[in-house]
Amino acid sequence: MNKLAVVLLSGGMDSALCASIAKSEGYVLAALHLNYGQKTQVRELKAFEDILHHFSIKHKLIVDVSHFRQIGGSSLTDEHIEVTPADLESKEIPSSYVPFRNGNILAIAASWAEVIGATAIFIGANQLDSSGYPDCRKEFYVAFQQTINLGTKPETNIEIRTPIINFTKKDIVLKAVELGTPLELTWSCYSESDIACGECDSCGLRLRGFQQAGVEDPIEYINRKTYFIK
Amino acid sequence: MNKLAVVLLSGGMDSALCASIAKSEGYVLAALHLNYGQKTQVRELKAFEDILHHFSIKHKLIVDVSHFRQIGGSSLTDEHIEVTPADLESKEIPSSYVPFRNGNILAIAASWAEVIGATAIFIGANQLDSSGYPDCRKEFYVAFQQTINLGTKPETNIEIRTPIINFTKKDIVLKAVELGTPLELTWSCYSESDIACGECDSCGLRLRGFQQAGVEDPIEYINRKTYFIK
Repeated sequence: MNKLAVVLLSGGMDSALCASIAKSEGYVLAALHLNYGQKTQVRELKAFEDILHHFSIKHKLIVDVSHFRQIGGSSLTDEHIEVTPADLESKEIPSSYVPFRNGNILAIAASWAEVIGATAIFIGANQLDSSGYPDCRKEFYVAFQQTINLGTKPETNIEIRTPIINFTKKDIVLKAVELGTPLELTWSCYSESDIACGECDSCGLRLRGFQQAGVEDPIEYINRKTYFIK
Repeated sequence: MNKLAVVLLSGGMDSALCASIAKSEGYVLAALHLNYGQKTQVRELKAFEDILHHFSIKHKLIVDVSHFRQIGGSSLTDEHIEVTPADLESKEIPSSYVPFRNGNILAIAASWAEVIGATAIFIGANQLDSSGYPDCRKEFYVAFQQTINLGTKPETNIEIRTPIINFTKKDIVLKAVELGTPLELTWSCYSESDIACGECDSCGLRLRGFQQAGVEDPIEYINRKTYFIK
């Protein structure tokens, strides 16, 4: 029997690359997608389904984590907080931060992985281009690994994999191109759902990554801003 | 301003005692309750509201964690798995185990605590009478504390409190009586919603605790079995 991995698949390019990496290592993929009341939920779900189809993934779980909206405190889930324009030099935690989001995501992934017998969880966190999100750092995943080891059955063995944790967005673009990750199917914009805005944090990071890699981003933008001068 | 604590309040007696303990330490309470598709969901929610009223708690958050039902793997959430009768001597993990449940619960609590500025999370886990649930052990909470420290904002400071982690159910009953915890409002049965069955794991642990403490359990039972011979 092939080994099974849960892959967090948001619909963005980081997680799509993780799917490529897991597949290249011989894993059968089980895709986990979360709706958390974000503004671009429907568009992200479409990207998820498109990527699923591309990789012929049969195991999928779509979970509504509506409590992120109830809890609030983030521009992604609270319509009263504006999405701040990209400020890629800032060390401040941006308004799009959902408190302890990755802690929640990993907990769900661990539950599912234990039930279906997956031995790995792939998550596309990266600490360099992470906009200062505390739950995107390597130390956080090391700690969570310990939590999973102690909080699951003795015979359960689940490894958290963060294969792009030290990648820049440039590295991500280059690796995705190398592995044939379908970047044209991915969605990153936090603000729009038809054509990406090109101006939110997430678009800013993505566009800069493509520009640094010297690769043209295959998706459309309302305002394809330049974030990197050669 | 008074210090604020998130208290996990399931409606059972362990969490009700935790509320008493947090209150006795001077915390203002914020009560978090989870519906996870368990068979006795409505009854537990009633117990939660009754306890809320008893303690005059104003901050509350009720979250639907429907993914436990989607993920399955437990008799609490999957109607195809029978609730096994109490076997208090068994070292096996019972069928009522929801995989990594407390990991999910703590993640939600941490998100909420960070947003509302709570400095503690009280959870009524106890490792002695825990039926072998791996996420009820002290080591698990120590590991999760580290996860919260690393996965939240630098200025956030949330302490996981497990004040009854080493209590037996007998200790819990005695301490609850001492602090005036409203045990008559609590609900423990995993199987029934009108009158407690007296035969499921949870009823077994509760009844044995009362019997060992020499205190009469104020709630009604279909079959008030004897689990402890003096």
